[in-house]
Amino acid sequence: MKILTLTEESKTDILENLLKRSPNSYGKFESQVAEIIENVRAKKDAALFDYTRRFDGADISADTILVTDAEIKEAYENVDAKLLEVIKKALVNIRTYHEKQRQYSWFDSEENGILLGQKVTPLQRVGVYVPGGKAVYPSSVLMNVMPAKVAGVDEIIMTTPPGKDGKICASTLVAAKEAGVDRIYKVGGAQAIAALAFGTESIPKVDKIVGPGNIYVALAKKAVFGHVSIDSIAGPSEILVLADETANPRFVAADLLSQAEHDEMASAILVTTSKTLAEEVSKEIDAFVKQLSRKEIIQKSLDQYGYILVAKDDAEAIQTANEIASEHLEIVMKNPYEVMTKIRNAGAIFLGEYSSEPLGDYFAGPNHVLPTNGTAKFFSPLSVDDFIKKSSIISYSKEALEPVYKDIVQFAECEQLTAHANSIKVRFED
Amino acid sequence: MKILTLTEESKTDILENLLKRSPNSYGKFESQVAEIIENVRAKKDAALFDYTRRFDGADISADTILVTDAEIKEAYENVDAKLLEVIKKALVNIRTYHEKQRQYSWFDSEENGILLGQKVTPLQRVGVYVPGGKAVYPSSVLMNVMPAKVAGVDEIIMTTPPGKDGKICASTLVAAKEAGVDRIYKVGGAQAIAALAFGTESIPKVDKIVGPGNIYVALAKKAVFGHVSIDSIAGPSEILVLADETANPRFVAADLLSQAEHDEMASAILVTTSKTLAEEVSKEIDAFVKQLSRKEIIQKSLDQYGYILVAKDDAEAIQTANEIASEHLEIVMKNPYEVMTKIRNAGAIFLGEYSSEPLGDYFAGPNHVLPTNGTAKFFSPLSVDDFIKKSSIISYSKEALEPVYKDIVQFAECEQLTAHANSIKVRFED
Repeated sequence: MKILTLTEESKTDILENLLKRSPNSYGKFESQVAEIIENVRAKKDAALFDYTRRFDGADISADTILVTDAEIKEAYENVDAKLLEVIKKALVNIRTYHEKQRQYSWFDSEENGILLGQKVTPLQRVGVYVPGGKAVYPSSVLMNVMPAKVAGVDEIIMTTPPGKDGKICASTLVAAKEAGVDRIYKVGGAQAIAALAFGTESIPKVDKIVGPGNIYVALAKKAVFGHVSIDSIAGPSEILVLADETANPRFVAADLLSQAEHDEMASAILVTTSKTLAEEVSKEIDAFVKQLSRKEIIQKSLDQYGYILVAKDDAEAIQTANEIASEHLEIVMKNPYEVMTKIRNAGAIFLGEYSSEPLGDYFAGPNHVLPTNGTAKFFSPLSVDDFIKKSSIISYSKEALEPVYKDIVQFAECEQLTAHANSIKVRFED
Repeated sequence: MKILTLTEESKTDILENLLKRSPNSYGKFESQVAEIIENVRAKKDAALFDYTRRFDGADISADTILVTDAEIKEAYENVDAKLLEVIKKALVNIRTYHEKQRQYSWFDSEENGILLGQKVTPLQRVGVYVPGGKAVYPSSVLMNVMPAKVAGVDEIIMTTPPGKDGKICASTLVAAKEAGVDRIYKVGGAQAIAALAFGTESIPKVDKIVGPGNIYVALAKKAVFGHVSIDSIAGPSEILVLADETANPRFVAADLLSQAEHDEMASAILVTTSKTLAEEVSKEIDAFVKQLSRKEIIQKSLDQYGYILVAKDDAEAIQTANEIASEHLEIVMKNPYEVMTKIRNAGAIFLGEYSSEPLGDYFAGPNHVLPTNGTAKFFSPLSVDDFIKKSSIISYSKEALEPVYKDIVQFAECEQLTAHANSIKVRFED
């Protein structure tokens, strides 16, 4: 793998190249997605069944769209027993971590009768989208469902495209059941998002839609935003490893490749202050790639969006990591905690040489749904926060309002909102 | 004002009527907005100056787009001294309330060397949009800026359309300065949103855009979502008063009108179990409207989106409030706190007869930027939460990883992600 020396110029080029992967640049699919949404809004179930026939080659009806208890039982019989065991272990960790994210209603009061606060309420009904297709990721089901469950959402429904045989893969069903999904519908694509946003005869309207998907799903989520809430729009996966001369090049190389294998648009970047490490990692990568089952994907991803960058010092390396704002950031340096204090932008930060990124994907407990493509500058990992909302609480006694009521009237009159002023004045008119 | 008895049927009609006000239904402006955004992205400042000439009739250049210290000084000389005093008082309350919303980084550790947590980081640069035009709302400046300030955002920039004379109104400038805005640019509309999202020669790209605006601004915010973060899309204002026979009809009527005056699309709804109160409030409204300066707006708003609804019992009244999910909810009943426990959906909840809605608009401290149009089902008031983001922290020692590494490998292999499995295996290959 090629090694670059970091300069302001090379950095600008790299940032531009990475942003090409943005799911926000696919305007050409927008009108197609808009048409699907309009159709589902108008024709509801009929449109869903029609699209499922066309896009998934499956015959689904009002009688078969909902996964039955018998189908779930069958899935448990067919699923790999070892996988089920690991799912159960992972779920304990995921639940435990997310329980620590819980937020609570609070208030503060003064003795004159002022009470102010915030009431925290879970969302009522949430839709989780699970992609079908070639790759099936039960871990993704766990990560999308568990924060909603911990938040106390009343009803979690899932949609996922059926295979041509009208079935859903066993590991998806088992993961959904273990995580606590209430109902599963056999529908995918933009049509599933439209159904969740507006409701059909079979599928109830939800308050929020989460979960990854292809470009149609991403654009549909963006289009229905405002009618419902959505999670952040997922882009291709990324890893950035910040490493110095103390890092094990074999570990670093393996970790970079673990993200590169996700998809041709994935990005794997090493930023190091050690020229020697850069060279060793490059060699290890070349050796590993040959042995890995997904080598074609990995090679394309590395060619397009993989970089080994040599920085002149820690400060430059850290600044580059902050500018790229990677989904996953590993810090494999002498003093990882000290470096971490300087990190502003990253989805998840992995510290030290045994905190390999796949540990976070599957097992440790923190969510693997993370902001991609530079959006870690303003988005957060999927969390319990995504499944609650807050209401302000305002309570004033007469005693509390009286000394300030003229100020409020003054403010309202300055804004020429006389009915606002009136609603305060009437309370003291006698 | 007309009084309706609440039935399932009337409720469905009302909910449908209210949703007509959704800013998500204005598809026809979308292509216009898309064109403005593309132009600003391509031609940057030149496009901004051109649109400002066309839409605002003002000549702005690279030399004059940024509000100068001299202009701010002049604003202080021209602003109403009493308004400035009230702004300062309100700011103390707004700051105090928002400081209680602060979230903190946390971690939890186990003695085998596992450390998991979340790092909370403020956003780096935020853009606040402030509408120009007829109505000027310094309170809106305070409410949009203060949570960002309390969150610790490094740089808060504001954009607002200039008048034909190229000037910004004094009260906006003074409110911005008092709240702690770092820089103010004279540009409005979709072009301002595009500039904040993508940057121009004059205006730097921000991480998040907040603030209300007309339909062009709302659609532009939606279009750039993903490139930057945005607050929820603001619709027309709303109030719902839940009242029983103990309520003062004059207070209730005045409070309903305080929202109806905002705009013809605003909605004011009374839901009461008392037929007598319904009739008294109706009479008070008719009497008040005649005296109020914004009577034309109020009358149109009441005719289209105003309702007095009589419910058969508290449960039906409360359920209706939850289904409408109003921006502002007043509870004027014998036991407001008990009723509040049953409220799931509302932007801000005002308790008791002295907690008039304008108290919250201007003074009490909680934010007046609230979810509208039913979105209180899933969105929250603007808060410090909007200006921070989180990163997961994951640290495992060798001792911690060793007993579980085979589980992780198992999970990765079930998902056929062999490079993921490899990155765990290499750590234990000897």
